[in-house]
Amino acid sequence: MEAPAQMWGSVRRLVLGSPLPTARMHAERVGLLGGLAVFASDALSSVAYGTEEVLLMLVLAGAMGLPYAVPVTVAIVVLIAIVATSYRQTVVEYPSGGGAYVVARDNLGPLAANTAAAALLADYVLTVAVSVTAGVAAITSAFPALLEESVAISVVCVLFVMVVNLRGVRESAAAFAVPVYLFVLCVLSLVAWGLCKSATGWHGTIGTAPSLALVAGQPLTAFLVLRAFSSGCAALTGIEAVANGVQAFKPPSGPRAAAVLAVLATILGVSTLGTAVLARHLSIVPSETETVLSQIGRQVFGESPMYYLLQATTAIVLILAANTSFAGCPRLAAFLADDKFLPRQFGTLGNRLVYSNGIIVLAVVACVLIIIFGGAVTRLIPLYAVGVFTAFTLSQTGMVRHWFRQRGAGWQTRAVVNGVGAVVTGVVLFVVGVTKFVHGAWLVCVFIPLTVLAFQQVRRHYQWVADSLRLSGKVEAPALRNLNLLLVGGLNRGLIEGLRYLKSLSGDACGVHVATLGQDNTKLESAWKELAPGIPLSVLASPYRDISGPLLDFIEAERAQGGYDVVTVILPEFTVRSWWESMLHNHTALWLQFVLRNAPGVAVANMRYRL
Amino acid sequence: MEAPAQMWGSVRRLVLGSPLPTARMHAERVGLLGGLAVFASDALSSVAYGTEEVLLMLVLAGAMGLPYAVPVTVAIVVLIAIVATSYRQTVVEYPSGGGAYVVARDNLGPLAANTAAAALLADYVLTVAVSVTAGVAAITSAFPALLEESVAISVVCVLFVMVVNLRGVRESAAAFAVPVYLFVLCVLSLVAWGLCKSATGWHGTIGTAPSLALVAGQPLTAFLVLRAFSSGCAALTGIEAVANGVQAFKPPSGPRAAAVLAVLATILGVSTLGTAVLARHLSIVPSETETVLSQIGRQVFGESPMYYLLQATTAIVLILAANTSFAGCPRLAAFLADDKFLPRQFGTLGNRLVYSNGIIVLAVVACVLIIIFGGAVTRLIPLYAVGVFTAFTLSQTGMVRHWFRQRGAGWQTRAVVNGVGAVVTGVVLFVVGVTKFVHGAWLVCVFIPLTVLAFQQVRRHYQWVADSLRLSGKVEAPALRNLNLLLVGGLNRGLIEGLRYLKSLSGDACGVHVATLGQDNTKLESAWKELAPGIPLSVLASPYRDISGPLLDFIEAERAQGGYDVVTVILPEFTVRSWWESMLHNHTALWLQFVLRNAPGVAVANMRYRL
Repeated sequence: MEAPAQMWGSVRRLVLGSPLPTARMHAERVGLLGGLAVFASDALSSVAYGTEEVLLMLVLAGAMGLPYAVPVTVAIVVLIAIVATSYRQTVVEYPSGGGAYVVARDNLGPLAANTAAAALLADYVLTVAVSVTAGVAAITSAFPALLEESVAISVVCVLFVMVVNLRGVRESAAAFAVPVYLFVLCVLSLVAWGLCKSATGWHGTIGTAPSLALVAGQPLTAFLVLRAFSSGCAALTGIEAVANGVQAFKPPSGPRAAAVLAVLATILGVSTLGTAVLARHLSIVPSETETVLSQIGRQVFGESPMYYLLQATTAIVLILAANTSFAGCPRLAAFLADDKFLPRQFGTLGNRLVYSNGIIVLAVVACVLIIIFGGAVTRLIPLYAVGVFTAFTLSQTGMVRHWFRQRGAGWQTRAVVNGVGAVVTGVVLFVVGVTKFVHGAWLVCVFIPLTVLAFQQVRRHYQWVADSLRLSGKVEAPALRNLNLLLVGGLNRGLIEGLRYLKSLSGDACGVHVATLGQDNTKLESAWKELAPGIPLSVLASPYRDISGPLLDFIEAERAQGGYDVVTVILPEFTVRSWWESMLHNHTALWLQFVLRNAPGVAVANMRYRL
Repeated sequence: MEAPAQMWGSVRRLVLGSPLPTARMHAERVGLLGGLAVFASDALSSVAYGTEEVLLMLVLAGAMGLPYAVPVTVAIVVLIAIVATSYRQTVVEYPSGGGAYVVARDNLGPLAANTAAAALLADYVLTVAVSVTAGVAAITSAFPALLEESVAISVVCVLFVMVVNLRGVRESAAAFAVPVYLFVLCVLSLVAWGLCKSATGWHGTIGTAPSLALVAGQPLTAFLVLRAFSSGCAALTGIEAVANGVQAFKPPSGPRAAAVLAVLATILGVSTLGTAVLARHLSIVPSETETVLSQIGRQVFGESPMYYLLQATTAIVLILAANTSFAGCPRLAAFLADDKFLPRQFGTLGNRLVYSNGIIVLAVVACVLIIIFGGAVTRLIPLYAVGVFTAFTLSQTGMVRHWFRQRGAGWQTRAVVNGVGAVVTGVVLFVVGVTKFVHGAWLVCVFIPLTVLAFQQVRRHYQWVADSLRLSGKVEAPALRNLNLLLVGGLNRGLIEGLRYLKSLSGDACGVHVATLGQDNTKLESAWKELAPGIPLSVLASPYRDISGPLLDFIEAERAQGGYDVVTVILPEFTVRSWWESMLHNHTALWLQFVLRNAPGVAVANMRYRL
C-alpha cells in the first residue's frame, strides 16, 4: 500500500504542472492581449456563422429579403455597442467580477440572480458541447474518413481544452493566443481587402457553390426581420464571460477588462458588418454545401494559401469557443459557491490557482451531452439564445436600478444606456422565446426553475450547518468522559503494539476480544493479565462470526453503565509492503472504521505499525 | 450518510436469507439424497454426452469402429468402479475432506498437492463455463430466437446457481434435487424400457436423423480405441467433488460420502453401459443435428411426453452440472486458504455458512470466460480432461503411498486397487495429453506451473507476516510516548467538540490550525487561550492551500524534538442527515485519514459528532 497518493501526485504534476503557491495569484493574471485570447474566442467564432444565420432567415422571404441583411447587421452591431458599453460600465463598478449573477444579486435580489446564474450555467455547458461539435464537423467535412469517430474526436477536444485550463489561466492564454490572433488577422484582412477591391468597382467572380433556390416561402414581415436579427445575436455570448472574469486580469482589473471589451466589440463589429456588406456586394446566397464566410473568402482571396488559412483557423476558433466557457463557467460556479448556492468544492482554488472542480465538472457534463446527442447537439442552439438574453436583460435591468440608487455624476445618461440595452435584449428574449418555444425553448422554462430550487435547497443546508456550528453566548469546553477500548485480535505483535499505545493514553481503559471462531482463549487471557495488569479484558461471543455487532453492543452497554460520553476504539493494524500483499488480508480495521463511523459517541483511533 | 451498511444488509437478507449462527453448521449438512443432488449433477450430465463422445471417436474408422463401443464403455465402467472404490476408501480415511489436494499433500508433499489443486481449480472454472454454455445451447437449439442472447442467458444462469449456492448447501440441495432426480428417473426408465423391448426381439424403427457418412477416415488402431476410451472418461469429473466435500455431509460423514459415491457410480455405470448397449442394438450413428441420447429416446419412447421430459431434464442437468463445481471449488479454495496458499478470505465462512468468497470468485471468473469465448467455450474441453486425470493420478498415487505407510489390515489389496487406478488414469492422462497437446492441452502446461508459483508466493507472504507477528521470549508492553494533536478547522462547534475530547485524553496535547486561506487568526488564537489554557496552539502556514503537507512536517518535527513515539491526530467531523448533504462537504477528515494512513508513528482518531 505504498503511497497511491504520491503516485497520483506525480501524474498530476506531469499533466498539470507543479502546484502554484497562493502568493503567485497576481502573477497568474493576464493582460489585454492574453485576456482577449482567453475570453474572445467564443464571440469571434460567431463571425464564422453570424452573417450566415441572418441570411438564412431573410432568404425565407426569397430574393426580396436579402437586401435587409445590412440594416439588420447594423442593428446587431449597435446592440453589440450598447451591451459592450453597458458592460464596460459594469466591470468598472464591479472590479471583483461583475457578470449578470453578481449585478442581479446586488441590485435585484437573489431570485433574479439565481435565474440569471441558472441560465448562464446551461449556456456555458451548451457552448462547449455545440462549438466543439461544430468545429469537429468542419474538420470531418474536410476529411470524411473521420466522420465515424466524430464523437470521440469531440470528447478528446473537450478534454484537451480542459487540461490546458487546469494548467492555469496564463497557460491557456499562451496556448490559444496564436490561432485566435491568426483568425482575427484573416478575417480583418478579408474585410479590408474585399472592401478595397469593391471600392475599385470589383464585383467578384460568379459564385461556384449551388445557391438555395430563391423562392419566397414566407412573406417578408417585420417579424421575420426580427427573427433574423435575433439569430445574429449569438455573437454577444462572449461578453458575459469577460464580465465574470474581471479577477483574471492584471490590476487595474476593471479598466483592463473594459479595454478588452472595447477591443472585442470593435473587432466583432467591424468583422460582422464587413462580412455582411461584402456578402451583399457579392450577392452571396446561403448554400447547403459551403458556408457564407467560405464563399466570401473564395471570392476575395481566390483559392490562395490565405483562403485555406482562413478555413483552418475558422475550424480551430470554433473549437476554441469552448475555451471562453472554461474561463467563465468555473468563475460563475465559484461566485455561486461563495454565496452557498452550489457545493463549496466549486469555490476551492486548485493546485494551479484555477477553479479545478468547476473546470472538470463542465468538461464531464459537456462530454456527456456530446455522447448522448452526438451530432444532433446543434439542435440545442435555440436553448442557449434564451439563456444569454435572460442573463443580459437581468444584468442590464440591475444596472439601471444601480444607477438610480447611486445617482453619481452623469447617472441619467448611464441609466438610459443600460435601459435601452435592457429593453432591446428583453425584446430579443421575447422574440426568441416565442419563435423557438416548441423547438426546445420550453426546456429552459423547466430547467431554470428546477435549478433555482436546487440552489435554494443547497443554501438552506449550508445555513443549517452554519447555524449548528456557530458558537454563541458564553462557551466552555469541559472534558468528556472517555473510555479507551483496545480491540484485541489475538496473541501477537498487534496486541503488544496496541497495548503500548493504550497505556500511553491515560484514563479508563479496557480490552475487547471478539471470539468469532469460538476457540479457546485462556492463553490470550492469561497473557493479557501479565502484560496489562489492572486493565480488564472482555471476551465477546459472536454466534454469527461478525465483529461489529457484538462490539457495538458492548460499547452501548459501557456508555450506559459507565456513563461515558465517548468510547475510543483503538484498532491496531499492520502495514504490508505492496498492494498485492494488502489484498491477502482481511482489512478488518478498514471495515470496522466504516461501520463505526456512524455509531454515536464512538471515536475510532486507527494505529498502524510496520512489520 | 445514514447507514449504507444497513441498506446493504437488508438487500443481502432478502436475496440470501438471514445469517446463520456458527452453531447451526451441523444442521446445514446434507444426507444421502441431498448429497447426491448437490454432487451428482456434473457426473450425471456426462450421461448426456458420454456415449456420443465414444461413438464420435470410433466412427472415424467408419462402420468397422462402431462395434467397439460396448467394450470401450465396459472399460470406462470398470474405470468408474475402480476410481469410485478408491475414493470410497479415501473419504473414509479423510473424513474432514479428502480430495486430490489433501491426499497428495499428506502423502506426496506440497508440490504434488499444489499441482493437483491448480489442475482442479482450472477444471472447476471450466466445468461451470462449459456446462452452462452447453445447457444454454440445448435451449437455444430448441428456441433459435434466443440464439442472439445466449451469452447473456448463460451469465444469468451462472449468477442464479451462484445465488442459490450462497444461500447455503441445504438450499442448493433442495432447489436442484427435483430436476436431478427427474433426469435420473428418465435415463433409468429409458435403459430399462429399451432393454426390455430389445429382449423381446424389437430392433427399433428406422432412424430419422441424417447419420454421418460411414467412411473410414482413419485405420482402426489401438490408439484410436484408447482415444475413444479417454473421450468417454469425462464422466468421472464429478467424483472428485464428493471427495472434497465430505464435510458437507451429516455425520457419519465418511461412510455417508462413501455411500453417495457407490450410488453415484452405480447410476453412472448402469446409465452409461445401458445407453451404449442400446445405441449398438439400435445401430445408432452420431449425427450433426441430433444427439445420440435423443436418438435413443426417440426410438424407445417414441414422440411421447416421456421423450420431451428426457430432453428438458437433459438441458437442465447440463446447466446444473455447474452446481457440482460450486459445491467443490470453494471447498478446495478453503483448504488452500487454510494452508495459506490462497488469500485467507477464501477460508472465511460467509453469513450462510458457505465459503461465499470462493463461490463469488468462481462465478465471476466463469462469467468472464463465457463472455470472452462466447459459444467457443466448448473448445476448452480438452483442457479439463487433462486437469481431472492429473488430479486422479496424483490422488491415487498418494493413496498407494498412504497404504504402504499405514500397513493396516488388508492394506495390500487396497494398495493394489489404488495402484491399478493410478496406472490407468496415468495412461489416460498420457493419451489425452499427447493427442490433445496442440489443441490446447499445452495451455495446462503453462497454467499449472504459474499457479503453483503464485501459491508459493502467497504462502511465503503469510509466513513472513506470521513470523513478524509472533511473540517470542519474554514480552513486555511498556507505554509509548504519545502526543495528542487536535486539528482545528476554525472557531466553531467542531473546535469545542474536539477540545472536550482532547481534554478527556490526558497526556501531552496540542492544537494545530493550518491557515490555507491566509486570513487573520487572532480571534481563533484568543478564543483558544481562553478555552484551552495551558495547551499550545500552532498556526501553520500553507502556501499551496494544502493541509496534509504542513501537518505531516509538523508531526515529523514534534516526533524528532519531543521524542514522541506516536502522534495521535484527532479529526473532529460533523455528520449530516443524508447522502446528498454529505456531497456538499469537503470530506477533509476522510482525505486526511487516507493520507495519514501511511505516515509512520501516526494514529488517526476520527471523532464524529451530530449537528
